[in-house]
Amino acid sequence: MVNRNTSKPREIRITFFPSGKRGWFPKGGVTILDAARTLGTDLASLCGGIGACGKCKVRITKGVEKLNPLTEQERKYLTTNEVKRNFRLACQVHPNSSIEVCIPERSRIGKLRLQTDGFEVPVKRIDPLVKKFFVELPVPDLKDPRSDEDRLIAALHEKYQLPTNIQIDFDVALDLASILREGAWKVTATVWKNKIIDIEEGDTSDRCFGFACDIGTTKLAGFLIDLSNGRVVALGSRMNPQVYLCEEVMGRITHQIMRGCDGIRELQKLVVQGINEIIVECCRKAEVNENEICEFCFVGNTAMQLCFLGIYGRYLAYAPYPPVLRRGVDVRAKKLGLKSHPRANSYFVPVIGGFVGADNVAVILATRMLESDEMSMALDIGTNTEIALGNKDRILVDSCASGPAFEGMHIKYGMRAIDGSIERVSIDPQTFKVNYRTIENKPAIGICGSALIDLPAELLKAGLIDFGGRLVAKMADETDRLRKGHNGLWEFVVAWQRETATDIDITITQKDIREIQKAKAAIRTGSSILMKRMGITENDISHLYVAGAFGNYIDPKNARTIGLYPEIQLDKIEFVGNIAGTGSRMCLISKEERDYAEHISTKVEYHELAADKDFQTEFINATFFPHKDLSKYPETVELLKKLGHFEK
Amino acid sequence: MVNRNTSKPREIRITFFPSGKRGWFPKGGVTILDAARTLGTDLASLCGGIGACGKCKVRITKGVEKLNPLTEQERKYLTTNEVKRNFRLACQVHPNSSIEVCIPERSRIGKLRLQTDGFEVPVKRIDPLVKKFFVELPVPDLKDPRSDEDRLIAALHEKYQLPTNIQIDFDVALDLASILREGAWKVTATVWKNKIIDIEEGDTSDRCFGFACDIGTTKLAGFLIDLSNGRVVALGSRMNPQVYLCEEVMGRITHQIMRGCDGIRELQKLVVQGINEIIVECCRKAEVNENEICEFCFVGNTAMQLCFLGIYGRYLAYAPYPPVLRRGVDVRAKKLGLKSHPRANSYFVPVIGGFVGADNVAVILATRMLESDEMSMALDIGTNTEIALGNKDRILVDSCASGPAFEGMHIKYGMRAIDGSIERVSIDPQTFKVNYRTIENKPAIGICGSALIDLPAELLKAGLIDFGGRLVAKMADETDRLRKGHNGLWEFVVAWQRETATDIDITITQKDIREIQKAKAAIRTGSSILMKRMGITENDISHLYVAGAFGNYIDPKNARTIGLYPEIQLDKIEFVGNIAGTGSRMCLISKEERDYAEHISTKVEYHELAADKDFQTEFINATFFPHKDLSKYPETVELLKKLGHFEK
Repeated sequence: MVNRNTSKPREIRITFFPSGKRGWFPKGGVTILDAARTLGTDLASLCGGIGACGKCKVRITKGVEKLNPLTEQERKYLTTNEVKRNFRLACQVHPNSSIEVCIPERSRIGKLRLQTDGFEVPVKRIDPLVKKFFVELPVPDLKDPRSDEDRLIAALHEKYQLPTNIQIDFDVALDLASILREGAWKVTATVWKNKIIDIEEGDTSDRCFGFACDIGTTKLAGFLIDLSNGRVVALGSRMNPQVYLCEEVMGRITHQIMRGCDGIRELQKLVVQGINEIIVECCRKAEVNENEICEFCFVGNTAMQLCFLGIYGRYLAYAPYPPVLRRGVDVRAKKLGLKSHPRANSYFVPVIGGFVGADNVAVILATRMLESDEMSMALDIGTNTEIALGNKDRILVDSCASGPAFEGMHIKYGMRAIDGSIERVSIDPQTFKVNYRTIENKPAIGICGSALIDLPAELLKAGLIDFGGRLVAKMADETDRLRKGHNGLWEFVVAWQRETATDIDITITQKDIREIQKAKAAIRTGSSILMKRMGITENDISHLYVAGAFGNYIDPKNARTIGLYPEIQLDKIEFVGNIAGTGSRMCLISKEERDYAEHISTKVEYHELAADKDFQTEFINATFFPHKDLSKYPETVELLKKLGHFEK
Repeated sequence: MVNRNTSKPREIRITFFPSGKRGWFPKGGVTILDAARTLGTDLASLCGGIGACGKCKVRITKGVEKLNPLTEQERKYLTTNEVKRNFRLACQVHPNSSIEVCIPERSRIGKLRLQTDGFEVPVKRIDPLVKKFFVELPVPDLKDPRSDEDRLIAALHEKYQLPTNIQIDFDVALDLASILREGAWKVTATVWKNKIIDIEEGDTSDRCFGFACDIGTTKLAGFLIDLSNGRVVALGSRMNPQVYLCEEVMGRITHQIMRGCDGIRELQKLVVQGINEIIVECCRKAEVNENEICEFCFVGNTAMQLCFLGIYGRYLAYAPYPPVLRRGVDVRAKKLGLKSHPRANSYFVPVIGGFVGADNVAVILATRMLESDEMSMALDIGTNTEIALGNKDRILVDSCASGPAFEGMHIKYGMRAIDGSIERVSIDPQTFKVNYRTIENKPAIGICGSALIDLPAELLKAGLIDFGGRLVAKMADETDRLRKGHNGLWEFVVAWQRETATDIDITITQKDIREIQKAKAAIRTGSSILMKRMGITENDISHLYVAGAFGNYIDPKNARTIGLYPEIQLDKIEFVGNIAGTGSRMCLISKEERDYAEHISTKVEYHELAADKDFQTEFINATFFPHKDLSKYPETVELLKKLGHFEK
């Protein structure tokens, strides 16, 4: 609370409910969203406060009459009913007098469901690049006047066979003499690669931790790992705070082009801040001191990694989109501002191309695609979706801008996976009764990604949408769930207001379905074109790996029904969850895997989707549910026929 | 001039002549020496202002009556005559009222003679660790969308066969994309070892410089070198500013023990400041920008190197004197505060032990002692003198605290080698007429190191001192140059006042001779003991290398006459000048020599003189001129007999 008891001239008071948080702000000087952030109040915004996401709806409970009139953006996102009930977009209101604001459940960020568990590929041997070694040194005397350096290195060589050409970090050398003596010649050396990066008194060899992190465009997931056994001791997840500036990769590149070095620094600061929060959380949970984190391993797409490193990514915006760096990068964690051991290294997994990043390398690493005789396809679904196809002879990859629809963006009642969001939906094709499940069985507040896959599939099976994705108006006679909304556009009621924790019916609109179509078409196009270029069909594919934030929660059959991927036998489809996170863990705990990641990055061929002659046609075909060419989905067609809603 | 026109309350004015520099200072708040330094007036002090060197004598020409009384230190260093003529030690006076001060010629530092030329051992191949490579890169297009990194490395590999696993410094990666494009894909890469430390637009491959430096306890000598051909393009020299704090190595270690981390930082700051001055001077002379200095190579004794690196050297004070580091050290020059390319490396040549430093490694490197079948001895004479003895099978080294007598310290009219200092002396054994030569033939102002070798030798040959170093009183009947000084002690007049630029006779006193005896005895003991431990005599030695600041200027026969070294045939003695400087140059321009220096540092055996059972006896024997055991100096004895002054 800021200056709670002293009203200042030219200041106004903003109070938020239900939290009760309040503070004084300059008259007309802040938006309600700014005020919420200043006070640490939980209020969602995906677009960063430019009126482009409609997620920061709040109800003004006192003082609404003195506010600035509705902006154009608000007219777009608020229904007539909401306007009548004093709803506003928090980012569009600059209060000139004191107000009270109620934040409805669905406008809160809540606590994201951790989707941090991945597909564990046991690495052959826990062999991190940083290790600790305890040694006792002989005390110097006139017969053994060796230098402190020689004495230490000889002891490490004798006991652990460390190479005698091992280096000592200069900063360690500064204190070496004192630590050896204060530790009575019993010390623990922390060795990274071939360099001693720390010397501590006594035996601390059981306290060596690492931090692996998936830097998603939208989400950050971090794993604190005990490097002595490779086990995850704590994990945490956060929205990538860069989302507040701009939600998509291209937007962040544009931000750099517009704002130059300041823009890069701003983005870098945001992601580092988000990761530091996860580090603090994990360290608290596992009772680890942040100084005990001796190495980091990061996996992200190329633009995210560059941005994290503070490298100007503007050239990624121009053909042929060459990345600045391809190989893995080692840089001191402190240089990036991470909470860590002062000399901890940060390793960034290599990338393949400007739009095929380390996350794709991680997919190929963790699925072992490049070691298999059989043909595999891997989809890593996110705001940007990367696709890999191949076997030990050849792997092709491409990347498509699938957008954040599956993260709930641009979907009227879309939201991230938090308590109360609808994650599963089925519709009875006869009665049109809707069954749904929410996360933690809390009253419904919105719809998250996995249910956004279910909904078009169920609507299609119930004959409520056609192959083109249009809600079938005549079906409104059969069910009152299908109706015209306030804006005159068709929508389908997923949950009636009385069942929810909100004051409205939760629906899926025609526009929402169009967004899902665009997203799934982009992904489907990526896989079609790779199969063409590889000269194979879906029948040649032995494994389909589906990775990504919501991977573990989606229904594989429904995803196939809408044509998110080719019609592949269900038992060949494997959901591998957050595989970028898995890859980052593998590269953190195993030198061999890290070397293998470097190998993958040179071996894989990047196919530039935008330059493919068939892109346009394939994209249009793929917008249909499941596809324009139904012969590609025989099982699905069979099912629809059986349900009696097949029309052609 | 500080506040020239406004007299402030409680401030006094101090004016120096002949420069005319003046300034206002707080009443009683500074010494005359402090004031001279603040105003940048040339006034010598070797002890750092503690009244221990007597070199800062000044004459008070106005205001003497109000000064603090003579201190104990002043009574020690000022003659009765000087006191009468208002001489004071500048460091002992805290004026309470305005004064005028005249700085006599002999109290000025002047410009040190550059003794920076060494014994050039042509390295086999100019092969510095840092090199520049100009490349033109193919412009990226959709058929060649390689990363900037891959593109650059491939071009360097194709044109210059650089390894493809070459690293790129992280700071270079930050700007890589922009520089490649702004340079229209024509760029110059600066490569240090296996790392790209810079990328510049266009072809700058002919602008790659290095800086080699001998860090002496007393003097710093620097060489700016064109790394494309190994040539010295400029050189410069300065007193090591640490001298102002304390003149000897042990004093500087004590300073660290007394003042802890502040003491180390203070010493480090001083040496860096001195080196930076030389860098600026060399860069100006050779029209080189300090950013073009891409690598440094330093050679100094162990304590000097540790101190430069900012590493606490306190443990060097305690047996068994182990150094912290033995191997060569690489550290970023900017981290040490050097004026340089932002990513230039500083290499510190490896050391052998706590009191046998990189300067000794340099001696063995440059003389090729370790490659020869024949037995060689090398003396590197300085405030600390290091001695090496051996051949390809074995090399033994030791180190002795010979003190700064040969640098003019503790010698009444001793001074460094500047214009006007007496550098050569001969005395006619019959007439006792003195012939001397001064540097640049300027009127005499004092005596420098090389003449301090000549004087006892000439006095001995003329029968004016005995083997024990005592001035022979009865000879005062023969020459008026031998006389009792103001303090009642014997002295010998080297130059009469009328011949000098001073207002006194320049003499060598009995006490001076004692100082020289101690210094030469320390050095002679070091060589005797090494020969004993190696099991050889002087007859087995094929080469005697004499290195050190004044090496090139001393008379080899006179040095032998006083017993500075064993009686070795004159044609076997080679003066190799500043060999530490030579070694630093060799290691700067040749990777092979640097590797060889590392080899030397492991191969050479250190013999701890202080722990040798014969040390005390040898030292006493060696204080005699030339030695207690005259059978070791048959030629010298023969000469003395011939001159008629042999008495025994």
